[in-house]
Amino acid sequence: MKRIAESTVRRLSMYLRYLENLDTMGQQTASSDELAQLCGTTPAQVRKDLSFFGSFGKRGLGYPVHELTAHLREILGLEREWKVVIVGAGKIGAALANYRGFRQRGFRVVGVYDNDPEKIGQPWGEVTVQDIAELPDDVAREETPIAVLAIPSDHAQRVVDRIVAAGIRAILNFAPAQITVPPHVSLKSVNMAMELEGLSFALTNAVTAESVG
Amino acid sequence: MKRIAESTVRRLSMYLRYLENLDTMGQQTASSDELAQLCGTTPAQVRKDLSFFGSFGKRGLGYPVHELTAHLREILGLEREWKVVIVGAGKIGAALANYRGFRQRGFRVVGVYDNDPEKIGQPWGEVTVQDIAELPDDVAREETPIAVLAIPSDHAQRVVDRIVAAGIRAILNFAPAQITVPPHVSLKSVNMAMELEGLSFALTNAVTAESVG
Repeated sequence: MKRIAESTVRRLSMYLRYLENLDTMGQQTASSDELAQLCGTTPAQVRKDLSFFGSFGKRGLGYPVHELTAHLREILGLEREWKVVIVGAGKIGAALANYRGFRQRGFRVVGVYDNDPEKIGQPWGEVTVQDIAELPDDVAREETPIAVLAIPSDHAQRVVDRIVAAGIRAILNFAPAQITVPPHVSLKSVNMAMELEGLSFALTNAVTAESVG
Repeated sequence: MKRIAESTVRRLSMYLRYLENLDTMGQQTASSDELAQLCGTTPAQVRKDLSFFGSFGKRGLGYPVHELTAHLREILGLEREWKVVIVGAGKIGAALANYRGFRQRGFRVVGVYDNDPEKIGQPWGEVTVQDIAELPDDVAREETPIAVLAIPSDHAQRVVDRIVAAGIRAILNFAPAQITVPPHVSLKSVNMAMELEGLSFALTNAVTAESVG
């Protein structure tokens, strides 16, 4: 399979959300115009994104909603359950461990780990916070593929090295640190401050535009 | 100013982080090769990104670290303080209200709002959870430009309409709902499940590649 840009995968996730809604409402077909409008992109982009994965829909008839929904779920790897461990039992870890959207999508949190003796042993929903020292063995035994990293930056790389050695193959990183992983490991980082910087940039430009215009 | 892609702004944030590190370490100049390597992009991309905003650096000498740092801070609107309200005093709201990275970047949380009587009045760090009914007046009076939305999807659009009417001009949305805003309002959405879907996509492709190869 060709290398697919992250922005494409993100749009596929978005198409899937809308198609699921349409499917629930009993709509049979959807046009690329309709999908484009719902997702804030262009019909050409919709057609291009979907063409990576085969030939869907018929000219003039649009995409079959139910079929395309199933196909997108398959493409995104959502036709199965994925085990996830959360590393870091702080506030962000707590928010993520209880996030209903994960379970709905088939991401099951099988463990939460921390090195703080005060936190270890605390019940968190369906799991109990465990000693981070146990993480490598648990991950290796359970063949857990995904880790969510919600720890301070200082030790992020060291923890990453350990969990990768234990067999983790995909990391969602919330630590505001640049971390590196070997090529076989997928890494996505969410940096809250950087998201806000996108907004301060927009606000600053708007101010400039106003003061100029 | 030309319309700048979101991905460019994101890279500017990243360049800034590395330049600040280099500046702290006393490094005087940085080449586009060096910045590209640190940020996982190409030297040509670095030059292109920075060329949007003027002419930096000298051929063969690289970019002056201290100067470019200051310039990027200015471009990103970080030479001032931005007031931020958090809407929703749940777990994600709690994580964000206490996020050190915000304050470090000049984003000051001036209020947290919820409609749950159990939460209203609770002290949260430097602020107290307030009744969401007070939000419009507070935002209008304080001229708060930024809201972080950490509420369930069901009421997201209704809340957005109210805070936009009150004067909010930029929204960072954590509700897994598609919301719409008028053209003068900037919107960025973070969808935790979609981030994980990017990883399940990567894992699924890796599996395919392995089983084929």
